[in-house]
Amino acid sequence: MEFIAPLDALFLLAESREHPMHVGSLQLFEPPEGAGPNYLREFRETLLADKNFRPTFRKRPATWLGAPQLAWTQDGEVDLDYHVRRSALPAPGSMAQLLDHASTLHSALLDRHRPLWELHFVEGLADGRFALYSKMHHALIDGVSAQRLLRRTLTTDPCSTEVSTPWNLPRKPRPETGSGRSRLGGLLENLSSAGTSTTALMKAARAGLVQQQLTLPFEAPRTLFNVPIGGARKCAVRTWSMDRIKQVKKATGTTVNDVVLAMSAGALRAYLLERDALPDKPMVALVPMSLREADDTDTQGVKIAALLCNLGTDIADPLERLRVVSESTRTSKEVYRSLTATQTLAVAGLMLSPLAALLLPGFASLGLPPFNIIISNVPGPSEPLYWNGARLDAGYPLSIPLDGQAVNITLTSHGDSLDFGLVGCRRTLPDLHRLLDHLEDALAALEDAAD
Amino acid sequence: MEFIAPLDALFLLAESREHPMHVGSLQLFEPPEGAGPNYLREFRETLLADKNFRPTFRKRPATWLGAPQLAWTQDGEVDLDYHVRRSALPAPGSMAQLLDHASTLHSALLDRHRPLWELHFVEGLADGRFALYSKMHHALIDGVSAQRLLRRTLTTDPCSTEVSTPWNLPRKPRPETGSGRSRLGGLLENLSSAGTSTTALMKAARAGLVQQQLTLPFEAPRTLFNVPIGGARKCAVRTWSMDRIKQVKKATGTTVNDVVLAMSAGALRAYLLERDALPDKPMVALVPMSLREADDTDTQGVKIAALLCNLGTDIADPLERLRVVSESTRTSKEVYRSLTATQTLAVAGLMLSPLAALLLPGFASLGLPPFNIIISNVPGPSEPLYWNGARLDAGYPLSIPLDGQAVNITLTSHGDSLDFGLVGCRRTLPDLHRLLDHLEDALAALEDAAD
Repeated sequence: MEFIAPLDALFLLAESREHPMHVGSLQLFEPPEGAGPNYLREFRETLLADKNFRPTFRKRPATWLGAPQLAWTQDGEVDLDYHVRRSALPAPGSMAQLLDHASTLHSALLDRHRPLWELHFVEGLADGRFALYSKMHHALIDGVSAQRLLRRTLTTDPCSTEVSTPWNLPRKPRPETGSGRSRLGGLLENLSSAGTSTTALMKAARAGLVQQQLTLPFEAPRTLFNVPIGGARKCAVRTWSMDRIKQVKKATGTTVNDVVLAMSAGALRAYLLERDALPDKPMVALVPMSLREADDTDTQGVKIAALLCNLGTDIADPLERLRVVSESTRTSKEVYRSLTATQTLAVAGLMLSPLAALLLPGFASLGLPPFNIIISNVPGPSEPLYWNGARLDAGYPLSIPLDGQAVNITLTSHGDSLDFGLVGCRRTLPDLHRLLDHLEDALAALEDAAD
Repeated sequence: MEFIAPLDALFLLAESREHPMHVGSLQLFEPPEGAGPNYLREFRETLLADKNFRPTFRKRPATWLGAPQLAWTQDGEVDLDYHVRRSALPAPGSMAQLLDHASTLHSALLDRHRPLWELHFVEGLADGRFALYSKMHHALIDGVSAQRLLRRTLTTDPCSTEVSTPWNLPRKPRPETGSGRSRLGGLLENLSSAGTSTTALMKAARAGLVQQQLTLPFEAPRTLFNVPIGGARKCAVRTWSMDRIKQVKKATGTTVNDVVLAMSAGALRAYLLERDALPDKPMVALVPMSLREADDTDTQGVKIAALLCNLGTDIADPLERLRVVSESTRTSKEVYRSLTATQTLAVAGLMLSPLAALLLPGFASLGLPPFNIIISNVPGPSEPLYWNGARLDAGYPLSIPLDGQAVNITLTSHGDSLDFGLVGCRRTLPDLHRLLDHLEDALAALEDAAD
């Protein structure tokens, strides 16, 4: 038996029908040349033959009948038939149908009587590709580490006949990643076990955020996204060319992240305008961000920050909005550098645990939500990747909406592509896919203006 | 706002991840001649055009955040896109894959933020048929009424172009059925509202059952089926020819129900023997049963009883087992006739609410489970039925396993067929489908012996 780390336990304790606490991913693959009708069935059978499991893939909460779950137990016999599924899309097999299907899968709670993960192969896409929807509980793994883990099952060799299974990857292939848990998670755990209580960490995080918030000339307004949520989800995904974004970046002297945030801001503004619900004050995003570019040396080795960013949703002009976003992230980074090491670490922890922000003691008493939306950009691989000869076409991260954060935007780069994964509460955002069109419009507007 | 009747509220209060409280059905349809590839899509769209909802299909629990749900509210806008789904089977589209799919659907909890029902059209069966998996919460409707409701959407006219929707059926087509709730349910509610408390009803039911139990020379033994259960389900279904069963009945001078119970008993015996887990004492089934055949006039109009039946699982000889089953049901019916009107009514209520049996005050103190399994035989239609030109081939009821009742057998007649629907806890009965083979073997053994 193993006690569950306090930050991880949060995700089990806070989970409910309305708040599934798993992270997901939707990957699209192009089958290899000459793959027959039995390709996927045989692929799955190859995977199922691997009965070696890393501890993460055997873990389930030790007690489940009523009592809080504070310990992990290891499942002796993992029922792989349950965890690795096949399904198919009804005709005609459109992307919209795939997203309907992924949305349903992303809405369902994981079974706590079993290890907290599932893989679903989906066939029947009209274009001949297949999809892999995967989900893991956030108590086991954070979103960034989950993306990394999925990537590690892939290879750069299109002809490789060795098929890796996510549950049996070699340990620590690179020094900076742990087994299924990111280095930052490890740091937080160390800090935590070194005597710093979760509450103290939370307090430090709050202080860090409040200090950032002071640099903003306003508090985050309440929007239609900042409401209690239901249990059903809508997922929406789309890929944009990195070249387009880089051209805007170049023409405006900003960063890729700035352009992505300005795109998101433009889309959110249009969505709210369409519903006559745009607040006068600009929306604020919580943005997990790498500090590497900034040549930062004062953060005790932590290279990831959680920044508050003014999205400038009150501004109609796209270039002016981009300028506000860019300046806001720059200011927030400066504040970040002034934080203590513990504060830095704790605030960074928000990236791993968006939920923590909502549980921070005292945050409720701030009255207004400290931010309106979480927008994450997770760096991805630059080279083409394969699994069992199938080429990875896209990999969309699907994260966790929360009470008060009814929509989440997470994106990841992938070769020349930026893959956006949006997840929303189905009741609050029945037409989440509209945000995709608005994202495109916002990028086009930036291109026009920067030209 | 409408208060939830006590018996119905039970099903909401007792529901958990481990104990979904919905009844399901898996229907198989043969599409009409010349149905094109868009048949199902258009069928669904025709259904979705009907925006008139009976109250049952608008109801959802009024409070859901933590507090017990004691009132219904009506959903103003039903999100039909959510409630009526399409999905497909992966290749090759076998019945086993359909059952995998139905098992997953039957394992998922209904979303309490919405009216408590779902319909799933499933395509991709290799034989060209399609399936409809439907589920409704037991707080809305009992299993028998749900089967009846689904049947009422069908017509005997294969060419009818009028497509009924389950959510907009005309009220009370026959005097003895209410809107989505059986006459017996109505009686219980009347009794309840007339001042008889739920507790008093439960006590009466218990007394009635104990009186029946006294006629059995033993108490129900504990078997591997009588354990706490998890949330995942396995479903298994198969159709048997009614002719085969009637021939055994005729040759042995028993009833169809007796033969079905003896088949089930033989299957359970074989399943337990295979696992070296057959108890010395015979298993006891709770059997909801019509008393009409018995020419009973003393039951105040209630024609349905919940009988305890000795399954004779300790007996190797199939004919001897059938004889024991037959005698046991006859004795139980006699006891039933001696019960008071309130007891009759209350015990009958168990058919609608198998859960109630487990919540009966004092039952736990009886030490051993009062019965090992619930086996229900729901009478069905004798003529061929159609929906939008598609012929109903089979309709399998899928009921609710409970703590201590890890498997449920429900069957329904349908023309010359008997459709068996088995639902088990996936963890307890990973090989539930073996019971189907044992059912066939048990019937064959009865045929051989009776020949």
